Amino acid sequence: MDRIKEECGIFGIFNNKEAATLTALGLHALQHRGQEACGIVTCDSKNFYAERRFGLVGDNFTKGKVIKRLPGKNAIGHNRYSTAGNNLIKNIQPFFADLHKGGISIAHNGNLCNALHLREELVKNGSIFQSTSDTETIVQLIAKSKRLKIVEKIIDALFKIQGGYALTVLTKEKLIGIRDPFGIRPLVIGKLNKSFILTSETCALDIIGAKFIREVENGEIVIIDENGMESLKPFPKMKERPCIFEYIYFSRPDSIIKNISVYEYRKRLGCELAKESNVDADLVVPVPDSGVPASIGFAEKINRNVELGIIRNHYVGRTFIEPTQQIRSFGVKLKHNINRPLVKDKSLILIDDSLVRGTTSLKIVKMLYEAGAKEIHLRIASPPIKYPDYYGVDTPDKKELLASKLNIEEMRKFIKVTSLKFLSIEGLYRSMGHKERNNSYPQFTDHCFTGEYPVEPIDASRKDFGEEQASLISKNYQ
Amino acid sequence: MDRIKEECGIFGIFNNKEAATLTALGLHALQHRGQEACGIVTCDSKNFYAERRFGLVGDNFTKGKVIKRLPGKNAIGHNRYSTAGNNLIKNIQPFFADLHKGGISIAHNGNLCNALHLREELVKNGSIFQSTSDTETIVQLIAKSKRLKIVEKIIDALFKIQGGYALTVLTKEKLIGIRDPFGIRPLVIGKLNKSFILTSETCALDIIGAKFIREVENGEIVIIDENGMESLKPFPKMKERPCIFEYIYFSRPDSIIKNISVYEYRKRLGCELAKESNVDADLVVPVPDSGVPASIGFAEKINRNVELGIIRNHYVGRTFIEPTQQIRSFGVKLKHNINRPLVKDKSLILIDDSLVRGTTSLKIVKMLYEAGAKEIHLRIASPPIKYPDYYGVDTPDKKELLASKLNIEEMRKFIKVTSLKFLSIEGLYRSMGHKERNNSYPQFTDHCFTGEYPVEPIDASRKDFGEEQASLISKNYQ
Amino acid sequence: MDRIKEECGIFGIFNNKEAATLTALGLHALQHRGQEACGIVTCDSKNFYAERRFGLVGDNFTKGKVIKRLPGKNAIGHNRYSTAGNNLIKNIQPFFADLHKGGISIAHNGNLCNALHLREELVKNGSIFQSTSDTETIVQLIAKSKRLKIVEKIIDALFKIQGGYALTVLTKEKLIGIRDPFGIRPLVIGKLNKSFILTSETCALDIIGAKFIREVENGEIVIIDENGMESLKPFPKMKERPCIFEYIYFSRPDSIIKNISVYEYRKRLGCELAKESNVDADLVVPVPDSGVPASIGFAEKINRNVELGIIRNHYVGRTFIEPTQQIRSFGVKLKHNINRPLVKDKSLILIDDSLVRGTTSLKIVKMLYEAGAKEIHLRIASPPIKYPDYYGVDTPDKKELLASKLNIEEMRKFIKVTSLKFLSIEGLYRSMGHKERNNSYPQFTDHCFTGEYPVEPIDASRKDFGEEQASLISKNYQ
Amino acid sequence: MDRIKEECGIFGIFNNKEAATLTALGLHALQHRGQEACGIVTCDSKNFYAERRFGLVGDNFTKGKVIKRLPGKNAIGHNRYSTAGNNLIKNIQPFFADLHKGGISIAHNGNLCNALHLREELVKNGSIFQSTSDTETIVQLIAKSKRLKIVEKIIDALFKIQGGYALTVLTKEKLIGIRDPFGIRPLVIGKLNKSFILTSETCALDIIGAKFIREVENGEIVIIDENGMESLKPFPKMKERPCIFEYIYFSRPDSIIKNISVYEYRKRLGCELAKESNVDADLVVPVPDSGVPASIGFAEKINRNVELGIIRNHYVGRTFIEPTQQIRSFGVKLKHNINRPLVKDKSLILIDDSLVRGTTSLKIVKMLYEAGAKEIHLRIASPPIKYPDYYGVDTPDKKELLASKLNIEEMRKFIKVTSLKFLSIEGLYRSMGHKERNNSYPQFTDHCFTGEYPVEPIDASRKDFGEEQASLISKNYQ
Repeated sequence: MDRIKEECGIFGIFNNKEAATLTALGLHALQHRGQEACGIVTCDSKNFYAERRFGLVGDNFTKGKVIKRLPGKNAIGHNRYSTAGNNLIKNIQPFFADLHKGGISIAHNGNLCNALHLREELVKNGSIFQSTSDTETIVQLIAKSKRLKIVEKIIDALFKIQGGYALTVLTKEKLIGIRDPFGIRPLVIGKLNKSFILTSETCALDIIGAKFIREVENGEIVIIDENGMESLKPFPKMKERPCIFEYIYFSRPDSIIKNISVYEYRKRLGCELAKESNVDADLVVPVPDSGVPASIGFAEKINRNVELGIIRNHYVGRTFIEPTQQIRSFGVKLKHNINRPLVKDKSLILIDDSLVRGTTSLKIVKMLYEAGAKEIHLRIASPPIKYPDYYGVDTPDKKELLASKLNIEEMRKFIKVTSLKFLSIEGLYRSMGHKERNNSYPQFTDHCFTGEYPVEPIDASRKDFGEEQASLISKNYQ
Repeated sequence: MDRIKEECGIFGIFNNKEAATLTALGLHALQHRGQEACGIVTCDSKNFYAERRFGLVGDNFTKGKVIKRLPGKNAIGHNRYSTAGNNLIKNIQPFFADLHKGGISIAHNGNLCNALHLREELVKNGSIFQSTSDTETIVQLIAKSKRLKIVEKIIDALFKIQGGYALTVLTKEKLIGIRDPFGIRPLVIGKLNKSFILTSETCALDIIGAKFIREVENGEIVIIDENGMESLKPFPKMKERPCIFEYIYFSRPDSIIKNISVYEYRKRLGCELAKESNVDADLVVPVPDSGVPASIGFAEKINRNVELGIIRNHYVGRTFIEPTQQIRSFGVKLKHNINRPLVKDKSLILIDDSLVRGTTSLKIVKMLYEAGAKEIHLRIASPPIKYPDYYGVDTPDKKELLASKLNIEEMRKFIKVTSLKFLSIEGLYRSMGHKERNNSYPQFTDHCFTGEYPVEPIDASRKDFGEEQASLISKNYQ
Repeated sequence: MDRIKEECGIFGIFNNKEAATLTALGLHALQHRGQEACGIVTCDSKNFYAERRFGLVGDNFTKGKVIKRLPGKNAIGHNRYSTAGNNLIKNIQPFFADLHKGGISIAHNGNLCNALHLREELVKNGSIFQSTSDTETIVQLIAKSKRLKIVEKIIDALFKIQGGYALTVLTKEKLIGIRDPFGIRPLVIGKLNKSFILTSETCALDIIGAKFIREVENGEIVIIDENGMESLKPFPKMKERPCIFEYIYFSRPDSIIKNISVYEYRKRLGCELAKESNVDADLVVPVPDSGVPASIGFAEKINRNVELGIIRNHYVGRTFIEPTQQIRSFGVKLKHNINRPLVKDKSLILIDDSLVRGTTSLKIVKMLYEAGAKEIHLRIASPPIKYPDYYGVDTPDKKELLASKLNIEEMRKFIKVTSLKFLSIEGLYRSMGHKERNNSYPQFTDHCFTGEYPVEPIDASRKDFGEEQASLISKNYQ
Repeated sequence: MDRIKEECGIFGIFNNKEAATLTALGLHALQHRGQEACGIVTCDSKNFYAERRFGLVGDNFTKGKVIKRLPGKNAIGHNRYSTAGNNLIKNIQPFFADLHKGGISIAHNGNLCNALHLREELVKNGSIFQSTSDTETIVQLIAKSKRLKIVEKIIDALFKIQGGYALTVLTKEKLIGIRDPFGIRPLVIGKLNKSFILTSETCALDIIGAKFIREVENGEIVIIDENGMESLKPFPKMKERPCIFEYIYFSRPDSIIKNISVYEYRKRLGCELAKESNVDADLVVPVPDSGVPASIGFAEKINRNVELGIIRNHYVGRTFIEPTQQIRSFGVKLKHNINRPLVKDKSLILIDDSLVRGTTSLKIVKMLYEAGAKEIHLRIASPPIKYPDYYGVDTPDKKELLASKLNIEEMRKFIKVTSLKFLSIEGLYRSMGHKERNNSYPQFTDHCFTGEYPVEPIDASRKDFGEEQASLISKNYQ
C-alpha cells in the first residue's frame, strides 16, 4: 500500500458491565488505525482475561463466546497494523505482566526512540523479553522499578523512555491514560453514564454513544478508579506539538479535534490548495476515498462539483491478500476502475491527500489516460513528504519517499501528469487555523515535511534498527 | 439489510490458460451482486474441476493452491447472495451433472417462475434432486431431454421454463450464454485477445482488461467453441424489457449499459429528482454510498455541492456478522456516523437511491436529529416500491415493503422527516432517455413500481413458495 | 497397510430418544470396519437430518452440538474405510434422496457386481449421479421404480442388483434391514428396551447394553415400524454362504457369531495350525495385535505360553498419516519395536492371522533378526490368499497377492524365514466346526482362498473397473 | 483416567541434518509419557526455531511444511501430559529465552519442590513470568545468574532448585543433559552415527535406529558440542534412587533399564505375585493392556495360559474426548468389552499392574459379573499406593488414593471381588533383583508405597499448591 500508516488505535473503559463489548465496538470504530491484529484485556478486580488475535475486530470479537471469556467491568483494547517481519502473535497488544503487586496490562500507540538501548540493558540484568515490541520495554521497566506503588513505578519507567506515545494501562483497581510530553499521539477522555473511557479518537466515543469530555493533555497522566478521575503532570511543562498527520489522514473524517471535524480540516486543505494551484479543467476528480474531502473543498472554492471519475471496489479492502502472481500483475485494477464515459476526452484536476511513494498515483494516472483522459492535473492536499517518521508512524525508508529523491518537476515526469502541485507548508498551517508556522517551536510535529524532529531518534542510528531483535524466529511460537 | 438484493453475478471464459484466475477476478468485480457464496468450475476438455465456497471471492479464490485445483482453459463462475434458510453448500453454483454424453455445468442469474411445478413432475418420474435451487430444475430437464445434441437438449429445457434468467453453460467443448426472451437479467460479451467472455456487467471485463463486444440479446443463445461464436434465436421474437433495477442500483456505477455509464444514469435520476422536488435547505447530503451519484446529479442541478454529513465505516461491510445482542442493539451506528459539526443546526436534503422497508432511513434520520440537524428533507431517486419481484431479485414480502402499506404522507410520519418525495415514474423513464413509459409494452421490467409482471409468477401462488422443498434439513449435508 | 480391509460397518436404531448418540456409539464399536469416514442420518418422522464427516466417529460425533443437529428417534449410520482415489465427501454414507413419496436414506456394507452396467443405463435415461459409489445405484433404482409402496420399490431394485450386501434403510416411518441372498455380509438384530437395532456385529450391541436377538437371515428383509418387526423373503430360497473373513479377521474378537465368540474361532484356528505345523522352538510370538488369539490357541495346544516379542506403539493407529519422506523411510518401526532381550539368540514361532502382500512380515522378520533372533518359523492361521474379492472386501490386485505369484517355498525365501506354513483349507473348515468343506456348495464364501465365487463379478471384466466413473474431479466438490 | 500419569518425555539430538524429524520420531516413541501437547525447538547455530502444539506428535509434526519451519542440526523436544487447569499454550515446552549471551531452550521432565518459593523471590525483583510452569523458574534463574558462561549459569541455577528432574538444554553451540542428584527421572545417552542423542527411554533410540550408549548418571551434567561429550558432576556424590514407577508402568515394555527389558521386570512382578497369592481358578485374565506382562509372568509361574477375557477397543485412546453426558454415562464400555462366552460361569484371576482410585477396577469387575463370571480374584502386581508424589508424577490427592483410605478388606468390598491381593514391598524389590529393600537408604524412590520422600516437598505445604499462580486466566493468551 502506497500510504503512510498509523501504528494503532487504543481504547479503555472503566466500570461498565459490558466492558469487553464496548471495547470491541470502540476498536471497531478505530479499525482504520490498524488492521493486522487486535486484542482486549479485561479485569474483574481479581483476575485478568485476555484475547489477542490476528485480523479485524469484527471478525474476532463479535461472537458471544469470545466476549464471555472476557468478564469484568474494566477493559483495554488495541488495534495493530501490519509491519513486515514482526507479525508475531507475541507482539499483539495489550501486553500483560504479573508484577509483584499484581497484574498490569498495557496498550500503546506510538513508538519509543530509545527502546533498543533500554532493552539491551535490561537483558544484561536478567530480564527475559517475550516480544520484539518496544512496548514490552515499558512493561519490563515497570517490573524492575523499586518504587512501591504502581503509579510511581509507571512514572519511574516513563522518565526513562523517549518518543511519541499514548498509553492505556489497566491494573486490578485502576485505568490509567498517559500522553507523551509533546502530545504527539492522541488520547481523549469520554464518559458513558458512570463509565470513564480513554481512546484515540472521538469516533470511538460516538459508536457507543459516549460523551466527549476533553483531550488528555500532553505530558498528562490520568488515573481513573472507583473514586473518579485524578490528573498528574510529572514532566517539566512544555507546549503541545501533536502529529500533523492525524489531521491530514490518520483520523477518521468524523472524528473531532479541538471542536472541528477532521472532515472540515481536510476540506480546508482542499480549499487552500485551490487558492494556491487551481487550473482550468473539465472535471474535479478525487482519488477515492482518501482525496474526497479535499476535493469537495477544492471544488467548492472554485464553484464546481466533484465527479466520481474513479470507482472503488468496496470489497477490495480485505480481499486478495495472498494473491497469486497473475492476480498481482493486474495491480491497482483490483481496487479501482475508471468511469470511462465520464473522463473520455476530458481534462481533469485529480486530487489526493498525500503522495508517498507515488506508485498508486502512477497506476491511476495510467488508467485514466487509457480511458481517454486528455489532461491530468494532479493536486496533493499536503506538502511533499521528504523525511521518515520514528514516533509511531510507519513511513517507508527515506529512499522510497518520492519527494526525498526528486524535485517537483521530476516527480511530475515520473507520474506522467500534465501538471503537479503540492500544498505549501504555509497553506497547511493556514488550514489548521494558524496564521503561520512558528519556526522556533512549531505548533505541530511535522518533521516528515520539514525534517525537524521533536525528539532525537536514538535507535535510528543503530544498524539493526527495525530488525528482529530476538534470535527466536518462529511465527507460531506462542 | 434494508436493500433489495440481486441474486447473483456470473462469468464465463473460453480458451484462456488463466481461465480460473480470470474468472476469480471477474467474480471479484461482480462481488456487489452476491456475497454469500461463490464457485468456479473449469474444464480441461476432458475433466471438470469445481470449487464452491461460502464467503467472498477474495477470501476463497486468491491462493495459488486453489487455482491449481482448477486447471483447464474454459471456466464459469458464480457469485451468490444470501437468502435466509437456503444457505446450503449444495445450493452454491455453478451446478454440475454427469450426463450421458458428458459433463455439463451451469451458472444462473435470475429466477424461474414455474420451477416448483416442474420439479414435482421430475421427482415423480424418478429424478433425485440434490439442492433446493431452481437452477437444478434446468439441469434435470437437460438430463431428461431425449434430444441428441447438448445444445438441443438445452433448448428443449428452455422451452419448459419461464422467468428471468441469464445463464452460462460449460460443456467439454463449448461455453454457452443464454438470456431469457425478455432479457430481464443482463449478460454481455467481451473479448480478451482470443478468449471470449460472458458476464453480467462490463466492470468484470474492465478488471481483466477485456474489450466489450456487445450485449447478448434478449432470447439469444450464443455458443462459443473452437470455431468462434455462433448465435441462435430459438424463441419467438419480442422486444427486450430489461430490469430497471440494474440501472437504479444493482449494477456498479462504472458498468456501462447502452454506451452510458450507470453512474451517469444515476446522476440523471438525481437531476430529475431535483427538477421535481427541490427545496430550500443548507446542505445536500447523500446516504453513503448508495445515494452518492444521485446526490451529485441533484446538487449539480441546483448549483450546489454535496457534503459528507454521514460517514461510513469502511470496515463494516463484512464485520460483526454474528453480533451479540449488545452489539446488535447499537444498530446502524456500526455502519454510519454523523459528521456532527457539519449538520448541527442545519436543514438538509437527504438523498438515497431507493426506499424499501424504511428501517435504515429511520435510523439515519434519528442519528441526524440527535446530531443537531434542524430539518431533514428526504428525497428518493426512484418511485415507491410497492410490489415484490419474482425474477431473480430478492424483495421482502409485500407486507414489509413500506410503500405497499403506507401512502407518502404516512411514510413521512413513520420516518419522521420534514418532507419526503419520490421520483415519479415519468421522471424515471426520462432519466433512462425515454420520452415516456410505453404503457402497452413498457420498455423496462418495472413491476416493483407498477405491478405489471412480464411473466406470470406461477409458483408464487403456492403456499410453500420460498420454503425449503427438500425434507433433508442439514446445513452441512454435502 | 498390508491387510485385507472391510468396506464398512452399519448401524440402525428405531424408536429411541437418543437415536443419534446410540448410533454414534454403535459406529464407534464398529470403527475397526472403516476409519476413513462416518455418517449418521436421523429422522423425526417429518424431516431427515444428516452429518457426514471424514475421520473417526469419536472425533466427529461426540460433541453435544453435533448430536443436537441430529434430532429424531430413528437413525442409521455408516463407517467407511479408505479406498484410494474415491475419498470424495459425496461418497460418504448414508446416502439420502428425496423421492416422490418422501425421503429415503441408505447405508450399505458390501459391493455390487453389476453396478457399472446399471449406472450406465440409468444415466442414459436422465438420472444424475452425485457420487461414484455403487450404493447410489441402489438409490437411483429405487427412485425410478414404478411400484407404489416404498418396500415394493426397494424389492424392485434388489432384483436388479447382484453382489454381497447388507443394507439399513431409513424412511419416514420405517427402518429396514436387508441381507443379500447368500448372506455374504453380516447383519444382526438387537433390542434395547423397546428399540430395535440392526448392525454389522454384536459388539455394537454390547457397547450400548442392547440384547442380541438373532441374525438377519440370508435373503431376508426385516421391516421395523411402530407395529414391530416384520420379515419378508422375496428371493428364491438358498443356503447361506457367509464371508469366511469375518471369522478370520474382520470381526472384533468379542463379537459373537452363532453363539461362539470370534476370539474362540481364532484360538481354534491357532490350535488347528499347531496340530498341522508345530515345530520345536524357544518362544511362541504373535504379530500384534492380529496374531494374538491364534497364538494363544497355538501355545495352549503345545502347552506353552505366548511371549510379547514384538511391542506395538498404541499411538500409531492414526498418526503420521501425512509422513515426510524421511519418516516414511523408517517404515514399520513407527508401529512395532522388538523386545530385544527376549528374542536375542532364541528360535521363534511367529504367528499371524493371514498373509496378503507379505510386506509387513518381511519388515518384522528383518527387525527380529536384527534384534538377534536365531530362527524364525512363520505360521499363518489361514490358507494362502490367491484370489481377489469383489463383494465388499478391498483386496489388492491379484498381482500384489503374494500367494498368487509364489509357491510356499518361494514365499519362505522372499520373507527370509527359517520355515513357513499356512493353515490348510481342511483345518480352516474344522476350526469353523465343520467336518469338511462341502465342495459342491461350500458353507462359506471363501473364493479368496479357492477362486470359487458365489456370484459372477460382471463389472470386473470392464476395463474401467475401479476407475472414477464421473468426469468431475474434485475432492472438495460438495 | 484411573492411572498415575507421567509428566513428560524428552528428547534431544546434536549434529544431525534431520534433527527435527528425528526429534519428532523420538517424541512419537515417547508418546505414552504425555499426550496433551508437544513441542520442538531447533537451532541452526544462529537462530532458534520453535513449534509448540496441543495434541499428539503424529498429528502435529509429520507434515513436511512443519518440519521445514524447524531447520538446524540441533534440536530438543518435549511431550506433555494433561494436567487440569494448566493447559495453557504458554506452558507447552520446550521453553525459550533470549539471554544476554544468546538464546537458550529447555525441556524438563520432572517437578521442582521449591519452585513457588523461588518464583516469588524472582517476581519481587522484577522478573516477568510468562507461564505457570515450574520449568520457567529454572529459565529465570539462569537469566539472573551473574556467572559468565552458560554452563556456569546453569549450575548456579541448579544449586537453587530441589526435586526430581531430567533436563535437555539447547544453546547455540551445545546440547546439555542433566539428571537430578538422586536420578529420580530417567535420561539416557544414544548415538546415531556421529549424532549424540539424549532421551527419556531407550525405545526412542530404537525408533530411529540409534545405539544405546549409557544412562546419564544421577547428578551428572553431560555437555555435547562440536568437540564431543564432556561430563560434569558438580553436586556432592550420592547413590542413585530412581523412581520405581518407571519399572512398574511408566516406561514402555520394550525399553531397557540396566540391561533388562521393562517387559521382563513386569513379568517378574507377575511371577512374584503368583508366588505370594495364587489361587485356584479357571482363567488368568489381564486387564488390557496394563496388566498383560504381569499376567504372562503370573500364568507362566502357575503353568497356565492367559486368556483375553476383556477386549479393548483400539480406537478409544483418543476418541470421545469431549463426550456428551449420554455417552459419558456409558462409562468404561467405550473402552472395554467382555468376551462373554469365555468368562461365563468361570472363576477368574484378574490381573492389573496397579490400583489407584479403584474406579476402573470397579467398572470392569461389574462388567465381568454381568457377563456371567462366577468368581473374581483381583491380583495387583505392585503394593498399595498410599502417598501422593511431588517429583514429576501426577498422582491424585491423597484422599482419592483408595489405599490411603481403606484397608485391603475394605477395598475388596468396595470393588466387590471375591478376593484381593497386592504384591508385597519385599516381592517388589525381589522382582527388581534386590534381595531386600535397604530401609536406611532405599534403592528406589518408592514413597508412593512407603511415604519416604527423598527430598522434602516444600511447596506442598503452601495452601495454593497446584493452583494457578498467575492472575491472568486465559487459555488462549499467547
